[in-house]
Amino acid sequence: MTAVQRDSTLGTVHLVGGGPGAWDLITVRGMRALQRADVILTDHLGPVGELDMLCDASAKEIIDVAKLPYERQTSQERINELLVEHARRGQEVVRLKGGDPYVFGRGFEEYEYCLRHGIPCEVVPGVTSAVSVPALAGVPLTQRGMVHSFHVVSGHLPPGDPRSEVNWPALARSGGTIVVIMGVRQAGAIAHALIDAALAPATPCVIVQEGSTESQRVVRCDLGGLAEAMRDNDVRSPAVYVIGEVAGLSADQPWG
Amino acid sequence: MTAVQRDSTLGTVHLVGGGPGAWDLITVRGMRALQRADVILTDHLGPVGELDMLCDASAKEIIDVAKLPYERQTSQERINELLVEHARRGQEVVRLKGGDPYVFGRGFEEYEYCLRHGIPCEVVPGVTSAVSVPALAGVPLTQRGMVHSFHVVSGHLPPGDPRSEVNWPALARSGGTIVVIMGVRQAGAIAHALIDAALAPATPCVIVQEGSTESQRVVRCDLGGLAEAMRDNDVRSPAVYVIGEVAGLSADQPWG
Repeated sequence: MTAVQRDSTLGTVHLVGGGPGAWDLITVRGMRALQRADVILTDHLGPVGELDMLCDASAKEIIDVAKLPYERQTSQERINELLVEHARRGQEVVRLKGGDPYVFGRGFEEYEYCLRHGIPCEVVPGVTSAVSVPALAGVPLTQRGMVHSFHVVSGHLPPGDPRSEVNWPALARSGGTIVVIMGVRQAGAIAHALIDAALAPATPCVIVQEGSTESQRVVRCDLGGLAEAMRDNDVRSPAVYVIGEVAGLSADQPWG
Repeated sequence: MTAVQRDSTLGTVHLVGGGPGAWDLITVRGMRALQRADVILTDHLGPVGELDMLCDASAKEIIDVAKLPYERQTSQERINELLVEHARRGQEVVRLKGGDPYVFGRGFEEYEYCLRHGIPCEVVPGVTSAVSVPALAGVPLTQRGMVHSFHVVSGHLPPGDPRSEVNWPALARSGGTIVVIMGVRQAGAIAHALIDAALAPATPCVIVQEGSTESQRVVRCDLGGLAEAMRDNDVRSPAVYVIGEVAGLSADQPWG
């Protein structure tokens, strides 16, 4: 692509992955972007509750985009517009997102929108909840001699939904660890589809709610009992669950 | 598990994910662990070349475990022993790893070893190369309406190898983005297995060598031409490649 002169009156948009929730699981690059920012657009995931630990939040304009009108499409369009509007004023803009901006985060849509409107945009990768939340609960996604792949799936649509792009039967046969995010509501249907496709009901599972935060809760069960475990423990979003042999590895610290 | 009294004369081992390579893609928690460390055991991935940006490296004992005797098993056992030996001296120990410690990193083996030997051990998640390296090359692993899952696979064993735990045909049918790490040498065999299992040879691919560093190189090709593109461009480890529709999304910055 031909290099063109960058307009120096424009600010830059930084799409920053905030990590799973704990303030210190953002990257150093992400923290520095927050420190330089004039305006921060954030939702309710990532380190938003502890911004003061990362920057002088009182000196920044903070826009809570989770409070934009509820209807999803409108809200995403408005977020895109706000990013561009602020950068056009010459402001340094951070769009702070939970986890990694490009993992089910619509970050790439925001990136493309900025570029289409001539706004410089940088992505700052983050620690994705899909990997870090299981780790903090003591569960590795891979283990030598046991599993050489892992599969991260959005569980927001039930198996069989025509809008779903996920081939659940193929996943059941993948031989790898399955990590489901945004799948609390559909847990029963997902377990059913995987068992139907030959994954054993005794396959170990771990459910982690609000991983990395002080409210973290860990529930262990098996695939056949996944829906019941969700219900009995009143599991709520945000939660991640891991299905596979690694979920049966237990290495709790003995120091209570 | 019963809580037992922790021995206060012991140091703690921190298994820290160093991220894909750039020094500022480590987490704030990881940086703080480095700053408090007495001894750092590191290999050649992650931010090891720029430790001075993160802590006063000259005041630390740095052990380059990549220089341990070549034979793999011996070397891992010796790393485990070193972690325990230093913690028993009351030292704060950081085991610095590339990417995330639990993604193909043998981190969980080190964690279990420490616990078995009574050493407190903490895992500090990192930005995995599997997600961040594609992002920094402009490739999101998921995209609304296009792909709702991604699959991270170790390519160190060829498809069909009896030691491999990966079901490549199932992966080909998963409907998700495939990310291969440690798969430079086996790229031809992997492409062949996926095409045999019905993935189109025209499926877009992106290869990223030394992602996030100043030496980052990006090669675009299709699945049918993957092996040739590796050869023609002399791609070397560490490299990540992405197979799937998202690899065809292009959003290069026009600012050269």
